[in-house]
Amino acid sequence: MRKLFLGLFLATAATTAFSQKEDSILIKQISDEILNNGKAYDNLRHLTKQIGARLAGSQGMVKAEKWGLKIMQESGADKAWMQECMVPHWVRGGKDLAKASFIPSTPAKKGGPYPAAVNKELDIIALGNSIGTGKTEIVAEVMVVNSFDELEKRKEEVKNKIIFYNYKFNDTYINTFFAYRDAGQYRGQGPSRAAKYGAKAVIVRSMSHAADNNPHTGATRYDSAYAKIPAVAIGLRDADWLAEQLKTQTIKVSLKTNGYFLPDTIGHNVIGELKGAEFPGEIITVGGHLDSWDNCEGAHDDGAGCVQTMEILRAFKAIGYTPKRTIRFVLFANEENGTRGAAKYADEAKKNNEKHIFALESDAGGFTPRGLGLTGTDEQFEKFLQWKPLIAPYGASDFNKGGGGADINPLNRAFKTPTASLNPDTQRYFDIHHARSDVFEAVNKRELELGAVNMAALIYLVDKYGL
Amino acid sequence: MRKLFLGLFLATAATTAFSQKEDSILIKQISDEILNNGKAYDNLRHLTKQIGARLAGSQGMVKAEKWGLKIMQESGADKAWMQECMVPHWVRGGKDLAKASFIPSTPAKKGGPYPAAVNKELDIIALGNSIGTGKTEIVAEVMVVNSFDELEKRKEEVKNKIIFYNYKFNDTYINTFFAYRDAGQYRGQGPSRAAKYGAKAVIVRSMSHAADNNPHTGATRYDSAYAKIPAVAIGLRDADWLAEQLKTQTIKVSLKTNGYFLPDTIGHNVIGELKGAEFPGEIITVGGHLDSWDNCEGAHDDGAGCVQTMEILRAFKAIGYTPKRTIRFVLFANEENGTRGAAKYADEAKKNNEKHIFALESDAGGFTPRGLGLTGTDEQFEKFLQWKPLIAPYGASDFNKGGGGADINPLNRAFKTPTASLNPDTQRYFDIHHARSDVFEAVNKRELELGAVNMAALIYLVDKYGL
Repeated sequence: MRKLFLGLFLATAATTAFSQKEDSILIKQISDEILNNGKAYDNLRHLTKQIGARLAGSQGMVKAEKWGLKIMQESGADKAWMQECMVPHWVRGGKDLAKASFIPSTPAKKGGPYPAAVNKELDIIALGNSIGTGKTEIVAEVMVVNSFDELEKRKEEVKNKIIFYNYKFNDTYINTFFAYRDAGQYRGQGPSRAAKYGAKAVIVRSMSHAADNNPHTGATRYDSAYAKIPAVAIGLRDADWLAEQLKTQTIKVSLKTNGYFLPDTIGHNVIGELKGAEFPGEIITVGGHLDSWDNCEGAHDDGAGCVQTMEILRAFKAIGYTPKRTIRFVLFANEENGTRGAAKYADEAKKNNEKHIFALESDAGGFTPRGLGLTGTDEQFEKFLQWKPLIAPYGASDFNKGGGGADINPLNRAFKTPTASLNPDTQRYFDIHHARSDVFEAVNKRELELGAVNMAALIYLVDKYGL
Repeated sequence: MRKLFLGLFLATAATTAFSQKEDSILIKQISDEILNNGKAYDNLRHLTKQIGARLAGSQGMVKAEKWGLKIMQESGADKAWMQECMVPHWVRGGKDLAKASFIPSTPAKKGGPYPAAVNKELDIIALGNSIGTGKTEIVAEVMVVNSFDELEKRKEEVKNKIIFYNYKFNDTYINTFFAYRDAGQYRGQGPSRAAKYGAKAVIVRSMSHAADNNPHTGATRYDSAYAKIPAVAIGLRDADWLAEQLKTQTIKVSLKTNGYFLPDTIGHNVIGELKGAEFPGEIITVGGHLDSWDNCEGAHDDGAGCVQTMEILRAFKAIGYTPKRTIRFVLFANEENGTRGAAKYADEAKKNNEKHIFALESDAGGFTPRGLGLTGTDEQFEKFLQWKPLIAPYGASDFNKGGGGADINPLNRAFKTPTASLNPDTQRYFDIHHARSDVFEAVNKRELELGAVNMAALIYLVDKYGL
């Protein structure tokens, strides 16, 4: 028995060694193709500079969908199509304005112009999904709180004020997504928690540690139990200024925002497919989201994920790789303020009784790849870990438990599909996330391409071995 | 015996666990200090924007040295001083100019103006240490070669030509320093290898894969056996244009450069010191180089290494850390075109019979940290590896054999001092290296700071445990 075991072991080891070498060669071929002949960067230039912002429902969305379909076809999809879904249609409606004025010791004459010692324009932007101030601005005294705890303690003071949440991004987290998760609750819950106590509007400190003053938008959520009140994010330098002034002064802010919802409209997931040669019924999904906020080019969020997704398709075709399983390359609709594309994709999969064996998402910026994360069973994670030596040389060397993304998580909930995420370096992401600085120039060609390389390597391995 | 061994093992394990926890807390303290209160970014802003370029011998060098000494003192050095050394004093001497013209089928009248179909200015920059073209420009036909092999094969054609080395940066290396090492030989040896066969001047394709057209300078080395000829680097877009034109056209380039050497002058290493409380005779060195090329702000190369070095000093003092061993924080002189500062530092160490137990250098850009490399004995490497779990959470998770840098390698040669390098992510470095785009704006605050955090952690561990 011992000998038999030994023989089996050696045979397995030899096969593994052979496969590993073969895999290593194939992955190098993919990498060379992407680094030498990559189209991701040029595609991103087009998406950001020729199309630009593309919030759900906008003209940009429509243009981006058409363009995406064309690139899927040009990249060599066996089949490419649009999957229709209804998307929310929030519009900013005009320029968001905020002006801070010191309140002098003698009150302003009722109805008269506001006599201010200082009249400082604040760099602000309305939060996505927020309502506007109406035809005239809201003018109210600002009350700064540094946390929800402070809000609760001082709830009696809130009525008729503009609440300024000055909760700081925690710089001591090495992975900046932890700081985002931590601070993000003020953007999500802040308006309704202040409305509960009668606040007129909300200003939140931008979820960022940037050295500049650009305000960062992003979706807020109203709790239907309370009044919907206008809500804006403020740039960090202006937030610091405002907090500093409030230590010694009473300050009023005049706020004008114009956001509103139009009726839901038609949007699409854009899908390209390579049919599997051996197991066409087993579907692997890889994607990013095509929509972006309206105030930027959405280069990192998530133009990067979209062009990486299509680059994998292009590279597979360019090197003549025929997948065993069916691979779907998906540009999801409406991730930013509704995730209707994600829901639609999973619903269709259920309806068509599809078998989704794996999904991978890139939605953390086009920065240098550092790792891959996987949500799955222990066995799946063990298998995934074995591929680390093959992928790590290309940058993604941290293989972590926990992965996925807003666009593929519904697959996991519906089918227990294991989901993974590309985890790029996080240091620069929240400098530009949802801000006007999320532009093409902030993306580095090689970093973007290496993201695609690492994703392609994982897709190849799952395609070949299953998961 | 078994019990005794077990007892010993448990005692050791417990001590190790305790120390690891203590170390982990101390390193977190350092990290929080740097990420919350860091001065590295502001210091870098001053160095790049108020002082700027600082090639050995320049006024910028003198200003930077004075500033460095002041920051060492402000950061809390027990002692700070300048270590004098003679440095070469190469000056660019004026604007480098190159103009390409097609050679028409009928030759230009001798001495007359050059009748060109196209007159295209090329974005070029003279290589450091190169000689100028003299009072008038060199005008000569361009011969493109893609490699030294091609040069050798076509050596009969070289005489009186301008040789254009169009050797491309190899994009398929994941670590871009390999591409740099590979292409760098054309900058270093190119001029003399062409002069050997009678070339009049040399143009080298910039050692970069940037998407822009900025030319990248850097030192060349003349082989004294051959004539010294002018040598420039050309931006990548212009290199591609020139190579493309040369496929079908004969092209002359008119070249004007103005470089020359003034007599050697006085420069300084700037040194700050924390005296060791237990083993003051054991010296740990950490540093970067203060000089930069004259065409840029030297933000990544190597302003970053300098401000990181001083940040470690500041953070140690800020958290009240008293080192066991003596730690020297060094801003080295003249790394770019002579390494005289490095030589001086090692010479003085020999003269004073100092004991140098470890040296760490940061000279690969202020990008997000990915690893640490060590040159040392196998035992030293093993010890170093054991610290990986303590440092990896801060970004430097690749612990590799081989480390050091131009400024600390002389210590290794003199004393077998183990030397280490901070290895940041390499993807963006050669976009800006030695080019006008190496400016403050290309540096990210957190990435810069995290470099200092990882370096500080390693210095702390070596200080505590030796190596």
